[in-house]
This record gives sequence, structure tokens and C-alpha cells, in this order.
Amino acid sequence: MTVFSKIIAGEIPSYKILEDDRFYAFLDIFPLVKGHVLVVPKVEVDKVFDLDDDLLGAAFVFAKKIGKAIEKAFDCNRCGISVVGLEVPHAHIHLMPINSVDDMNFHHPKLKLSDEELKAVQQQIIDALQA
Amino acid sequence: MTVFSKIIAGEIPSYKILEDDRFYAFLDIFPLVKGHVLVVPKVEVDKVFDLDDDLLGAAFVFAKKIGKAIEKAFDCNRCGISVVGLEVPHAHIHLMPINSVDDMNFHHPKLKLSDEELKAVQQQIIDALQA
Repeated sequence: MTVFSKIIAGEIPSYKILEDDRFYAFLDIFPLVKGHVLVVPKVEVDKVFDLDDDLLGAAFVFAKKIGKAIEKAFDCNRCGISVVGLEVPHAHIHLMPINSVDDMNFHHPKLKLSDEELKAVQQQIIDALQA
Repeated sequence: MTVFSKIIAGEIPSYKILEDDRFYAFLDIFPLVKGHVLVVPKVEVDKVFDLDDDLLGAAFVFAKKIGKAIEKAFDCNRCGISVVGLEVPHAHIHLMPINSVDDMNFHHPKLKLSDEELKAVQQQIIDALQA
């Protein structure tokens, strides 16, 4: 069971953003920028391109809802997308508000946000989703 | 007309990888790594998340074919995906073979490949697509 499956199952707490029967989105707790979200299919597949076509397409349509909310919630040019996947063998899509390509540089030190700050970010995105 | 629309129209030459009625894929001539491909919808939309749901899903299903070919053609852990889009206002998906997150660092100096080298990379991916 991957760490993401444990998060989806509620065994590890997360700052949930959105969930449906196939996908789960939550805050990256080691964010590159405020508003950094991970979208994960509930099925445990390592590589995003190993998802079947329906699920792959649906993953990005699900991500789009959150991307639009991120664009509303944060002062940014747009929502960037990145799929790397070298650390956790469970496909995940990084979404983050960007103003510069530098905002997506995974070599940058991760932000250290408090529980309060993460909750505030979570609420900002949830509010934008519901707006 | 964006530079990508000119490429799709054949007004600017490109190292084409794959094309259908809705999408066009070609080598990034300023690649981060050998095998760096851009997937572009033929419709001129700035942000990938502004594509309608059908086209958005289809873009990643189209990209998957190329991603699988990239994984076959190059010695890599997998094909990484990045959508930034701050430079050309025409949605595009970066695909690249990666072994480390560093391979997707847009701050790295771009490779300078000769026409011959780019043709060889193009052929490697096309061969893998047809394998």
C-alpha cells in the first residue's frame, strides 16, 4: 500500500481538496509554492501513462477543476502541471500556481508551512472550487 | 497566429513526431534532454486547462502514445510531463525522458543539437511509436 493509498484511506491525515470515486486531491505538505496540490488516482498505478485512456483523460479533467480553483485562489499567471513520479510509485499530478518557471523548480527548498497555514491554503482552494 | 500554429501549418519547419486531426507533436529544438517533445492542440488556446474537457483528456491520451515511445526509445526511468506555458500563448505539453527530477529543470542550459542529431532523435521516437 503506497503512502498515497494510505492518505486516500484516511490512515494518514491529509489536507483534502476534492475527491470523487476515482481521484483524490490534497495539499502537498512539502510545497514548492503555496497552493501546491497533488492529484492521485485511487487505483495504485506507478506511471501516469500506464493509466488506461479513460482514467488518464479523466485525471486531467479532474485536475482541471482544481487548476481553475488554484488560478482563482492565488495571485498567479496560471496553474502549472508537473508529473515526475520518481519517489512514490503511485501516479500523481502536481498542480501549482506559477508566475515564473522557477516556481516549478523541484530543486528549490520546500516551504515549511504550519498546520494553520496549510489549513488556510486548503480553505482558499476549497472556497474557489465552490465559488 | 502563434509560432506553434505556424509550425502546425508547415510555415516553420519542425521535426514532426505525430499528428492527428486535433494534435501535433514535434521535437523541442531547445531540448532539456534528448527526446524532449512538445504536444500542441491545433486549436489556439493559451492555457491547457482552458481546453474543453474532451480535448483536454484527448491531449493527454495523445501524449501517452508519445510518452510510451519515449520510454522505449531512451534509457530512462520514465517519461516526465510538464505544462508551464509562460512563453508561448498556445497550450503545450512537454514530454521528456527522465532519470532524475533534475532532467526537468527548466533552468538548465538547453542542449544544442545539430540538425543531424535532431533527425536521429526524431527517428528514434518514430521508430518506437511504430514498434
